[in-house]
Amino acid sequence: MANLGFIGLGAMGGRIAKRLLDAGHTVTGYNRTRSKAQWLLEAGMHWGDTPRAVAEAADVIFTMVTNTTALQEVLGGPDGVLAGLGKGKVYIDMSTVSPAASRGLASQVAAKGARMLDVPVSGSVITLEQGNLSLMVGGEQATFEQVKPILLDIGPKVNYVGKNGQAVLMKIAINLNLQVQIMAFYEGLLLAEKGGIPRETALEVMLNSAIASPALKYRTPFILQKPDEAWFNVNMMQKDMLLALEMGRELDVPLPTTAVSNEFLTAARAMGLAQEDFAIVYRVLAKMAGLDA
Amino acid sequence: MANLGFIGLGAMGGRIAKRLLDAGHTVTGYNRTRSKAQWLLEAGMHWGDTPRAVAEAADVIFTMVTNTTALQEVLGGPDGVLAGLGKGKVYIDMSTVSPAASRGLASQVAAKGARMLDVPVSGSVITLEQGNLSLMVGGEQATFEQVKPILLDIGPKVNYVGKNGQAVLMKIAINLNLQVQIMAFYEGLLLAEKGGIPRETALEVMLNSAIASPALKYRTPFILQKPDEAWFNVNMMQKDMLLALEMGRELDVPLPTTAVSNEFLTAARAMGLAQEDFAIVYRVLAKMAGLDA
Amino acid sequence: MANLGFIGLGAMGGRIAKRLLDAGHTVTGYNRTRSKAQWLLEAGMHWGDTPRAVAEAADVIFTMVTNTTALQEVLGGPDGVLAGLGKGKVYIDMSTVSPAASRGLASQVAAKGARMLDVPVSGSVITLEQGNLSLMVGGEQATFEQVKPILLDIGPKVNYVGKNGQAVLMKIAINLNLQVQIMAFYEGLLLAEKGGIPRETALEVMLNSAIASPALKYRTPFILQKPDEAWFNVNMMQKDMLLALEMGRELDVPLPTTAVSNEFLTAARAMGLAQEDFAIVYRVLAKMAGLDA
Amino acid sequence: MANLGFIGLGAMGGRIAKRLLDAGHTVTGYNRTRSKAQWLLEAGMHWGDTPRAVAEAADVIFTMVTNTTALQEVLGGPDGVLAGLGKGKVYIDMSTVSPAASRGLASQVAAKGARMLDVPVSGSVITLEQGNLSLMVGGEQATFEQVKPILLDIGPKVNYVGKNGQAVLMKIAINLNLQVQIMAFYEGLLLAEKGGIPRETALEVMLNSAIASPALKYRTPFILQKPDEAWFNVNMMQKDMLLALEMGRELDVPLPTTAVSNEFLTAARAMGLAQEDFAIVYRVLAKMAGLDA
Repeated sequence: MANLGFIGLGAMGGRIAKRLLDAGHTVTGYNRTRSKAQWLLEAGMHWGDTPRAVAEAADVIFTMVTNTTALQEVLGGPDGVLAGLGKGKVYIDMSTVSPAASRGLASQVAAKGARMLDVPVSGSVITLEQGNLSLMVGGEQATFEQVKPILLDIGPKVNYVGKNGQAVLMKIAINLNLQVQIMAFYEGLLLAEKGGIPRETALEVMLNSAIASPALKYRTPFILQKPDEAWFNVNMMQKDMLLALEMGRELDVPLPTTAVSNEFLTAARAMGLAQEDFAIVYRVLAKMAGLDA
Repeated sequence: MANLGFIGLGAMGGRIAKRLLDAGHTVTGYNRTRSKAQWLLEAGMHWGDTPRAVAEAADVIFTMVTNTTALQEVLGGPDGVLAGLGKGKVYIDMSTVSPAASRGLASQVAAKGARMLDVPVSGSVITLEQGNLSLMVGGEQATFEQVKPILLDIGPKVNYVGKNGQAVLMKIAINLNLQVQIMAFYEGLLLAEKGGIPRETALEVMLNSAIASPALKYRTPFILQKPDEAWFNVNMMQKDMLLALEMGRELDVPLPTTAVSNEFLTAARAMGLAQEDFAIVYRVLAKMAGLDA
Repeated sequence: MANLGFIGLGAMGGRIAKRLLDAGHTVTGYNRTRSKAQWLLEAGMHWGDTPRAVAEAADVIFTMVTNTTALQEVLGGPDGVLAGLGKGKVYIDMSTVSPAASRGLASQVAAKGARMLDVPVSGSVITLEQGNLSLMVGGEQATFEQVKPILLDIGPKVNYVGKNGQAVLMKIAINLNLQVQIMAFYEGLLLAEKGGIPRETALEVMLNSAIASPALKYRTPFILQKPDEAWFNVNMMQKDMLLALEMGRELDVPLPTTAVSNEFLTAARAMGLAQEDFAIVYRVLAKMAGLDA
Repeated sequence: MANLGFIGLGAMGGRIAKRLLDAGHTVTGYNRTRSKAQWLLEAGMHWGDTPRAVAEAADVIFTMVTNTTALQEVLGGPDGVLAGLGKGKVYIDMSTVSPAASRGLASQVAAKGARMLDVPVSGSVITLEQGNLSLMVGGEQATFEQVKPILLDIGPKVNYVGKNGQAVLMKIAINLNLQVQIMAFYEGLLLAEKGGIPRETALEVMLNSAIASPALKYRTPFILQKPDEAWFNVNMMQKDMLLALEMGRELDVPLPTTAVSNEFLTAARAMGLAQEDFAIVYRVLAKMAGLDA
């Protein structure tokens, strides 16, 4: 069993750390708000006082935070992860940042004698708990082979994608589909509703059909019953859409449905719905269709 | 076991008729080109010389043809289905026509003393063969209950949606998702490809992720290996998109991602790809991205 | 001076008839509601009891009605224009119908020994009154040359475009620009407004800039002060957009900005604004931007 | 007559400096490549060895450069404009940068005791030479009133818009219209062309119609005859579109036609057309319509 570190113990990161503990690994954890990690400490996780302390204590260190700014906070400075890295260690970032940022980070890590992988995941809290999380890996293949057994303890589908930064690119390429799929789904649902089919019936039939991706299956019922807390809110979804559009311009790939769909997230924010799960885009479309949904 | 009729024995219709035969029903069939039905005759299907003859021979009559024009051909005139319908018979149309056309037809059928259901399906030849086809039912509930066991012999998911015409509306609402989903999928795939990830790898990772609907799973690999014959070609897909857009205007539902995606089917036709499976829209996007895909 | 007939004396048609009277021509007119033509009768116009009577009385007969249905009503039947046409007469349709419908009509007219031109106009009531209306002409060039002086009495810009149906195609190609231009204009205006620039100021500056087409100049101020009566309402604009989209599919021309913009007319209808001038699309965009405009 | 400085003597900046010289002002100029300013020196312009020297020599200093990076180069450092500013001087930036960048700059200028205005222009080289350039002004009203006579020597339409940064916002709000208008124009033109109307005829008729903005009038003929040098190339246009989309997200304004149109600039770059005038977007649409334009 390995000696691991985990920084960023939110809804997703915390549950991943738990799976690693359950698999028998030693885990030293750090979170900005310690109280949120209490359940993990009770489950046997060690506490690191700083990101650096975690990096020093572990052989393989994970980070999972919400954006580039948050990542820089845990990585840089005298108390940051970078200060604790050294020869032989492996640093794994599971956040969704830009490929360029990820590559830049890999260089900094290499300068410390350590190696980095970008390992974003596809799926939600539910997918993880069902043991179906899919992981994408970017970085040197040898490094990947070394940590592969640990990654398989997180989820069963581990895909090596290519060099540093390419796994986050892959993740971005997948995530744009989330927003476009949900837009099209609700366009169809509104057609059915305004045509007289009860919303529950239409939803059920659509989720029984060939267009029902796992993501649509767990997310679209939110229009009937909102989750207590947004799984992935409008702001977070738009952050990923903007990464996609930015990569589209950088790589010269036109993204017409992505570009159109993204504007409806802006509309959701304009309507005061920035903190809701992005499934709320239904309400924007419904308003345009003359419904007070 | 029931006494059934089946008109329109193409790729999908023929396989459905075969399932009904396999389930032990008596089936009298008709197809414009008889030779295409030879395999079914060998499997025990009876032949009807005209649609009318099929309607006269059977208690429950199915039609499955490509569009409204083809439907009118098999229904009208002295040799048509309508001429053979009478009290107590049930007529089931599995074609995708406009809800208004379907409702109009139901009135004509009722005038003959028979009853009609619109029962479009969601899924492909593969879904059917795997025994996973999903059926939507529009019409009187009592009629539905009467034929429900027969419908369950076709596929395991049979959803009663509402009155006549509402099942085809439901089908249209689902089908617009096919085109939008495939557009977004290929936008993401092109990002990955132009970012240096091999196409096969990117495809596999995307199909392992939470956005992979069954429809995407069986259709997107067509960019690696085209099917011998298009399952659902650009013209057929655009026909359904136009029905969706027409219903959107009729029911006052804006369909922004549908409208944009539909234009790429027009581009596919402009590039001479009308007869290809609609997955060919990848090539339109690839050309816009500067690739000779 | 010529002996003219004019059928369809609405806001635009009536004013064109008046210009023809002012230019010294003899005009026999017909309108479904006679009272609306009273001012023209007082200005010297003769009355025809039926479209046929007008066609019989005149050498050159104009029609200007709202859509294909209205056109068929004045043309067909025992009292229709066609019944009154004969050798040597010229029939000029100024309505916006589909190119195919216009070509079909031209054949019917030719069968009577007469000749037809499609002559749609670009511009509004204001453009006409300022003497700046632009006319497009489709049909045989010789017929055009014969009536050209009369057309120049309507507006100074008379462009021969090609054979029958091509002038209405040209008109449709122009009209899609109206809706797209106004969408983009209001997107910009909303940016300025939400950025703190007073709406009046932003409007003035935009109308002073290089993007200010004549159409934008007379129409965009409607958001400050609505016209008493819609010049061109949402339904009429959408009719033309649908003709454009239909022609796009027929001629294999993708129309991405047209397709997206058209959905906002649907939204306007869903919001109960179908009878307003299509400049009302501002309100749809404003609602999406969180404003109660 | 005033004592002026002008930094950035490209196609537009150089011609503005010339108008100021012609109006009788003293102008000290600076350009990264001195040779391009030779014609202005021959017309009486003084040379400043550095941006700082220009700022020290003049009372009112103009800059007009291509983007934020270029602007920072001429403003910062020991030889930059800021180093040469002092009490009583007015600094006028005519570049299109983000409103936030412009406001930040205004603070730096104020810290030197000077005042800044953002004064972007709307129109092209041709508009300027015809004496029709339109100027938008952001900053303190008193400062504006002071330099207004000088601005009127540049163009006849000078609009005070609001505080610092709001004139560049106004400019951005106008510029998004350029790209959307040209997209819609070419959609219409392609309809006409594929419908059999010669391109030259269709172009002429469209430019005679109510949708012909000044910008469309001087730019759309580029598809018949390209300018020797792009007036405003694809990259420059996309820079402005991105500023618009960025402001849309910041101010919560959905920009659907802007977002879609921007993707066609990406396609133009993917096809190797980044350095062409953005009118080249015709070729992207034409390729999608199956033409080898």
